[in-house]
Amino acid sequence: MEGLLKELIEQCRPDTQNGKVANYIPALAKADPSALGVYILDRNGLHSQGGESQVRFTIQSIIKPILLLQALMDNGEDFVRSRVGVESTGKPFDAINIADAVNQEILSEHINPMVNMGAIVMCTLIKGENYRDRFNRVLELTRTLANNPEIDVDEEVYLSEKATGNKNRALAFLMCSCGLLDGDVEEVLDCYFRACSIRVDCRDLARIAFILSNKGRDFLGRELFPAKYARYVNAVMLTCGMYDGAGDFALTVGVPAKSGVGGGIMAVVPGRMGIGIYSPSLNKKGNSIAGLRILRRLSRQLELSIF
Amino acid sequence: MEGLLKELIEQCRPDTQNGKVANYIPALAKADPSALGVYILDRNGLHSQGGESQVRFTIQSIIKPILLLQALMDNGEDFVRSRVGVESTGKPFDAINIADAVNQEILSEHINPMVNMGAIVMCTLIKGENYRDRFNRVLELTRTLANNPEIDVDEEVYLSEKATGNKNRALAFLMCSCGLLDGDVEEVLDCYFRACSIRVDCRDLARIAFILSNKGRDFLGRELFPAKYARYVNAVMLTCGMYDGAGDFALTVGVPAKSGVGGGIMAVVPGRMGIGIYSPSLNKKGNSIAGLRILRRLSRQLELSIF
Amino acid sequence: MEGLLKELIEQCRPDTQNGKVANYIPALAKADPSALGVYILDRNGLHSQGGESQVRFTIQSIIKPILLLQALMDNGEDFVRSRVGVESTGKPFDAINIADAVNQEILSEHINPMVNMGAIVMCTLIKGENYRDRFNRVLELTRTLANNPEIDVDEEVYLSEKATGNKNRALAFLMCSCGLLDGDVEEVLDCYFRACSIRVDCRDLARIAFILSNKGRDFLGRELFPAKYARYVNAVMLTCGMYDGAGDFALTVGVPAKSGVGGGIMAVVPGRMGIGIYSPSLNKKGNSIAGLRILRRLSRQLELSIF
Amino acid sequence: MEGLLKELIEQCRPDTQNGKVANYIPALAKADPSALGVYILDRNGLHSQGGESQVRFTIQSIIKPILLLQALMDNGEDFVRSRVGVESTGKPFDAINIADAVNQEILSEHINPMVNMGAIVMCTLIKGENYRDRFNRVLELTRTLANNPEIDVDEEVYLSEKATGNKNRALAFLMCSCGLLDGDVEEVLDCYFRACSIRVDCRDLARIAFILSNKGRDFLGRELFPAKYARYVNAVMLTCGMYDGAGDFALTVGVPAKSGVGGGIMAVVPGRMGIGIYSPSLNKKGNSIAGLRILRRLSRQLELSIF
Repeated sequence: MEGLLKELIEQCRPDTQNGKVANYIPALAKADPSALGVYILDRNGLHSQGGESQVRFTIQSIIKPILLLQALMDNGEDFVRSRVGVESTGKPFDAINIADAVNQEILSEHINPMVNMGAIVMCTLIKGENYRDRFNRVLELTRTLANNPEIDVDEEVYLSEKATGNKNRALAFLMCSCGLLDGDVEEVLDCYFRACSIRVDCRDLARIAFILSNKGRDFLGRELFPAKYARYVNAVMLTCGMYDGAGDFALTVGVPAKSGVGGGIMAVVPGRMGIGIYSPSLNKKGNSIAGLRILRRLSRQLELSIF
Repeated sequence: MEGLLKELIEQCRPDTQNGKVANYIPALAKADPSALGVYILDRNGLHSQGGESQVRFTIQSIIKPILLLQALMDNGEDFVRSRVGVESTGKPFDAINIADAVNQEILSEHINPMVNMGAIVMCTLIKGENYRDRFNRVLELTRTLANNPEIDVDEEVYLSEKATGNKNRALAFLMCSCGLLDGDVEEVLDCYFRACSIRVDCRDLARIAFILSNKGRDFLGRELFPAKYARYVNAVMLTCGMYDGAGDFALTVGVPAKSGVGGGIMAVVPGRMGIGIYSPSLNKKGNSIAGLRILRRLSRQLELSIF
Repeated sequence: MEGLLKELIEQCRPDTQNGKVANYIPALAKADPSALGVYILDRNGLHSQGGESQVRFTIQSIIKPILLLQALMDNGEDFVRSRVGVESTGKPFDAINIADAVNQEILSEHINPMVNMGAIVMCTLIKGENYRDRFNRVLELTRTLANNPEIDVDEEVYLSEKATGNKNRALAFLMCSCGLLDGDVEEVLDCYFRACSIRVDCRDLARIAFILSNKGRDFLGRELFPAKYARYVNAVMLTCGMYDGAGDFALTVGVPAKSGVGGGIMAVVPGRMGIGIYSPSLNKKGNSIAGLRILRRLSRQLELSIF
Repeated sequence: MEGLLKELIEQCRPDTQNGKVANYIPALAKADPSALGVYILDRNGLHSQGGESQVRFTIQSIIKPILLLQALMDNGEDFVRSRVGVESTGKPFDAINIADAVNQEILSEHINPMVNMGAIVMCTLIKGENYRDRFNRVLELTRTLANNPEIDVDEEVYLSEKATGNKNRALAFLMCSCGLLDGDVEEVLDCYFRACSIRVDCRDLARIAFILSNKGRDFLGRELFPAKYARYVNAVMLTCGMYDGAGDFALTVGVPAKSGVGGGIMAVVPGRMGIGIYSPSLNKKGNSIAGLRILRRLSRQLELSIF
């Protein structure tokens, strides 16, 4: 397997030149655009890695499935489902998916947990004394899923996200005005910005993905969360996870996955493996360009598609 | 299995009272709202059926995956992909997904083969001397997939669809004006209306679904079309197939499927089985209400979800 | 006055180089882009002209106020108002202003007589045995208002409009599907395309504008239509007449006006004068570029603004 | 004239029962729904009043033309025009008129000074050391135009607006994210909320309207601002002033006007008179229902329409 990874990395690394590193905040712009790392963990306990798999980067939108998972663990499926829909929006991740206050039930159907609006609502559904507490629970869940207690926050990225997050403020206040979001907007967003700034590497993502691929259980068979929550998260990732390129990804790779503007992709192959990718050069839709390419080739070679 | 089906039909039949039979044309309004039939065909060759599985009804939107398949067989993936996108639109099936002529490449990304606009384009991609010929090839493919040479067209439904199809005319002329559609609009639509009026029963749908679940091969292992086209059709059905309820369906059933306003649902369980359902009482999104319920229960009992 | 016009034409003619002649049909593309003509008719009977005021060109969208006037004369204000709204759409003239069939009363509020959708509905409100007859009444009204029985149709333009009018077909079928438009779409559109192809010169436009500025009366004081219809048409022209540049025109010129892609502008100075302009070089919004400039200067020099 | 007003008030007061007093904040809900007052000031210095013309109420959106005027006086037409467009949006006053950061110049064309987004930008264009200072200049201008130094702020309304203004916060942060708005959002909005809470009566509105009708000059002929700014404000009010009912108002009344959810309407009859109306019972578009009716009748009786 490591031979295959090495070969694929060689083939796909030139693609990194066709995209751009996220530069809306200086901390992200510093990433090495040519970096490309992969980490795979399969159900037989086999670990395989290649390229810059040990580089740490901010999790960004890949925190969205984890926020959803925590909200499910705290509230159950029915409550979460009643507050945030599960349909693809057909729009970019930071789009305004709702307009004016009409009917909360209808409005909530126009967002999903993989777009910013939905992920911000997830922060309010997570239990906690206050938003610092809620964030800590999300960090703790991330560490537990990745079996890595050293996962921390990139403070520079966090502060930059907070300083430049006016579009997210607009989304949050809009949801307040429609009754979709309760609580102090700045505190909710602080939790969200911190969560997006959690720092991981490819192995962390592969381990989290593995638990999702394995019905919520770790290698030893211990249940970290019920199988039905894994199905919920995986289904939402497949239909809405790859920004407005989810359909194309379903076609060409065919597994649940979530990408982040930090350059990460977490891919879940149900019943088989978890995959973590890092390559910060992004295409126009905000997905890692070499990361996509390597997943397409892996999918073909290993017949990963669930279809 | 037939015992299970009998039990589920008993449990779900009362749901038929919570919906409404399509009534935009008189021929559809005549359907018995309490009807509920199921037909399952698994990879071991086991046939199981229950309820009104022998009633014949018009295929309606379930023809969309077949139109897509014929277009793929005639043109290959790249050409079809370049003409019609694969992203969920986030809108109803008959929505206007494009506005003004700007850039064909961008516009084509806003439609997919499971919404009316995309399905109408598929008719123009299918090979044929003329549109009568193209339709005949679609009918022939449907008969071949279902292994049923007696499949025909419901002339009354076809004439009604043609008479009342002004929204589809609007969609077609709009695509003409943007360069997304070539050819005589009335002829293209005639092919589309005829194809939607093809009459099938649950067994036909189960057999077509089985081929899609089996990488394009029939029971004898004969390849009717390449495995990659099955993956294409299944992926697009999962992300866009159940109207604007695709995300919910992925969550609660978890398999590629397509529904039609005639009351049919065709569900594909990759590697395992094909399912055909009939129950014409529809929910507000146009999906068979008891059909959805029975698929949810089947999925839970038989662990059908691919996630 | 003719001295002033000569001077203004000299100043504004260079602007014709900053725009483009409409070229969506060949017949329009043949126009001389540097042409600029003006004709003014004031309440004292003074005629003034300058430049290429004698060139004949197709009336195009300037027929819209005349279609509205004929519909008002045939049905009264209340009926017309109930069928087509009077609010600015905030969108281009050929935009899709309505989406799905919900409620005719609400939908009709989203169109107005100065955008294509509204003007097409006007054709259906005009009385006549058939659509040929309705068109003849519109032509007759145009001749009467312009006091010029020789006004005719440019057959080449008419045939081209008919051949390329798919966007208008889409708009018409969409309105059919919403219940906003009755009748055979091709016949309705034939009437509309013919009406847009009526050929006029600057004097014709100035004379029509004069009647509108003079409460529906000609120089001899004969009432051609009631004053309230002149107010209706003028108000709608001011708020919606200059495509999506109506607000800017209200600010910088300040009188009711209507432009056409043939290069004409008809401006109504209530209580004072009628103005006809011709200059086929258009800006991006489809308004005559030198025509706008000359009207701005005329407005400032003669203090024409009604504000 | 006062006889006419008395008669019209008697005729129109029953209309107050067909609407509803604004109740999104408690302070507004306390208004007497049956109140109806009118104040007219004509160019001959004639004052006429009727009904509850002495009741004080918050100016709300009628501050928008005054914010525009102050911005014009501080920056000139070209600068203001380059920052905020003048086209009708075709949407409700508090709509989201822009989506994503693309091009500031294009985005600014989608707002106007009579909708919330545009009015909030006006606050940032007004000169001042800080936002308290800018507000004070707006208050001072209002007092000067109304020749009433006692005009003040309704603190209860101001605090309520500030507490419930999440939709406006969303609009402001959205404009920040697009580069349309600079400055601290809470400070900008504080200025805006205070300005909307300025308390006036019908006479104040009539006097302000009179100056606008009189090319910026008071009774003694003193120029308070240049005539061209009066034209700018009047033109924008006519095309965009009456929420999404501007077209209907142009048709049935035919003069520039601005309404507010506090129940006020300020109407400008160019060259002739200023009118102030108060009647807090509103129709669905947020306009005073009896106020509209009385203006329609006044317009017909006194032939006020500029068309």
